Amino acid sequence: MRALELVRGVTQGSRRDISRAITILEDELPGSGELYAEIYRRGGKAFVLGVAGPPGAGKSTLINCLIHELRSRGHKVGVVAVDPTSPFTGGALLGDRIRMVDHSLDEGVYIRSMASRGSRGGLSRNARKAICVLDAANYDVIILETVGIGQTEVDIVRVAQATIVIIMPEMGDSVQAMKAGLMEIGDIFVVNKADLEGADRAALEIGQFARGKDGGRPKVLKTVAKTCQGVPELASAVEGLMANAKAKRATRGREEVVDEVREALNGKVESAFALGVVSHPGWEALLKKVAERKVDPDSAAEVMMKDLAEGGRASPRNPARRGR
Amino acid sequence: MRALELVRGVTQGSRRDISRAITILEDELPGSGELYAEIYRRGGKAFVLGVAGPPGAGKSTLINCLIHELRSRGHKVGVVAVDPTSPFTGGALLGDRIRMVDHSLDEGVYIRSMASRGSRGGLSRNARKAICVLDAANYDVIILETVGIGQTEVDIVRVAQATIVIIMPEMGDSVQAMKAGLMEIGDIFVVNKADLEGADRAALEIGQFARGKDGGRPKVLKTVAKTCQGVPELASAVEGLMANAKAKRATRGREEVVDEVREALNGKVESAFALGVVSHPGWEALLKKVAERKVDPDSAAEVMMKDLAEGGRASPRNPARRGR
Repeated sequence: MRALELVRGVTQGSRRDISRAITILEDELPGSGELYAEIYRRGGKAFVLGVAGPPGAGKSTLINCLIHELRSRGHKVGVVAVDPTSPFTGGALLGDRIRMVDHSLDEGVYIRSMASRGSRGGLSRNARKAICVLDAANYDVIILETVGIGQTEVDIVRVAQATIVIIMPEMGDSVQAMKAGLMEIGDIFVVNKADLEGADRAALEIGQFARGKDGGRPKVLKTVAKTCQGVPELASAVEGLMANAKAKRATRGREEVVDEVREALNGKVESAFALGVVSHPGWEALLKKVAERKVDPDSAAEVMMKDLAEGGRASPRNPARRGR
Repeated sequence: MRALELVRGVTQGSRRDISRAITILEDELPGSGELYAEIYRRGGKAFVLGVAGPPGAGKSTLINCLIHELRSRGHKVGVVAVDPTSPFTGGALLGDRIRMVDHSLDEGVYIRSMASRGSRGGLSRNARKAICVLDAANYDVIILETVGIGQTEVDIVRVAQATIVIIMPEMGDSVQAMKAGLMEIGDIFVVNKADLEGADRAALEIGQFARGKDGGRPKVLKTVAKTCQGVPELASAVEGLMANAKAKRATRGREEVVDEVREALNGKVESAFALGVVSHPGWEALLKKVAERKVDPDSAAEVMMKDLAEGGRASPRNPARRGR
């Protein structure tokens, strides 16, 4: 069977098969259902580390250093880089990726970037799937990198078991006011560009405003990504988080599973909707009635749920019809 | 019929009935389905103006000035204030609300604030419904205020027909890097606290980086909310947007309707999921299997879709079962 062959390649660490598997899952190509089931069964071992922070804080350079350090300590490192921002800022991320060719000859490093295609829910679902593939391929640290500091990033980073938040000194002032969300999700805070003025003050401020997930004070470190200064300390802190996560993983949180399944359910509905508008002859008329305010959106959604129910029953038996 | 009575009260402008109607829709209390259908039919007249910007930029004070100015020009003004940020920063918004008691004796002003209850999708759905009620109640300008500058805010503000983005001088530096999303959605940019140093530079910067929705340059204004300086000019600019919106409204965009219905559909699924975990005996076992990685989330979601389909058919005939 094709899916199983591909899965074998993935578990043996073939980067080509990893890439193919991620593409199949991401684009919901034929066979993606079986593939996901097989991949998912083989996951659950990796440590997923979120890295978040505003553009310009030096995330990519720092991640580059961190990869080198973790590699030298014997870890296989995967990176899933997610850009939830608008196409307007998309260029920067591409530039960051280019810097990472650095690792292209090292089989122990795999880097995948994905951009938003309009749906943010889809982005986080696809990130989960890419992580799952890398997990099955025995990458033991998977870095989930995201650009930005808003709620979206907080949501994406929720997929991770622990999170590093990177900021730079000049932003010290704004930290308190503008990044409240991030202040709550960080397990480690890094003040990068610590050779610039204000780094100590920024570290102090973060120490004051950040809250650890368990109510405690999270770790605050200083780095200079340009020269990888402070990165060994960072890597050790990451290994500490890994050990913690391993201890906790034995009992996987129910909330986490509920999150994952709800997200999948939302995904099903989104594609069913996109498909339904094309294939259900009545839906176009229904949308027109909503436009004319003869029907309210909730009532329209109820009719659609019914239609999906009736049409949906065939699909599990005919998985080839999914996607595309 | 109760719903119709309430609708009559709403269209007659009773603030008590408006409040009740919004609560019924928000909490999906019994009868919310009929109520929404009736309210929705009566909407579509108001101009919905988004106002976004980081905390501390003086949004509430400025909105306060703007309300006074719009009132003096004969508009009825509704405000729906939405806080998508974490409970950590929730306090600030409450403080803002208190400042608004200013208008409590003016029947031509209605202010409603809503906080995130975990679901961001829910927040934007509820904001739409509150707007719809105020629309039916003949408020001709409805201000949709949101705290923050991330993607979430951009999503919420999408509900609006036009948007004001408020910033303050000190933030000039970060504007470029951090608010790319907002830079694209503003129809008017306001540099508030224009008596502080750097206001001119900030205005200049915004002029450079902001793009109007149609590719043109959006308007940049300077205000001092403390003294309502610059607010008459702002109100005139808003009236200009109103006139534009009215001209466009004749043909309501298909995309807008699709958005609204998709959001409603997502809402249905979210509540069905929440309900299903409790009421479908098989779901708990299914979640357990996902936790053990014996079933992948997509397959679990497919089973749930089927269950919802079968269980879902009864509900339109028995609307009292919905919600709660």
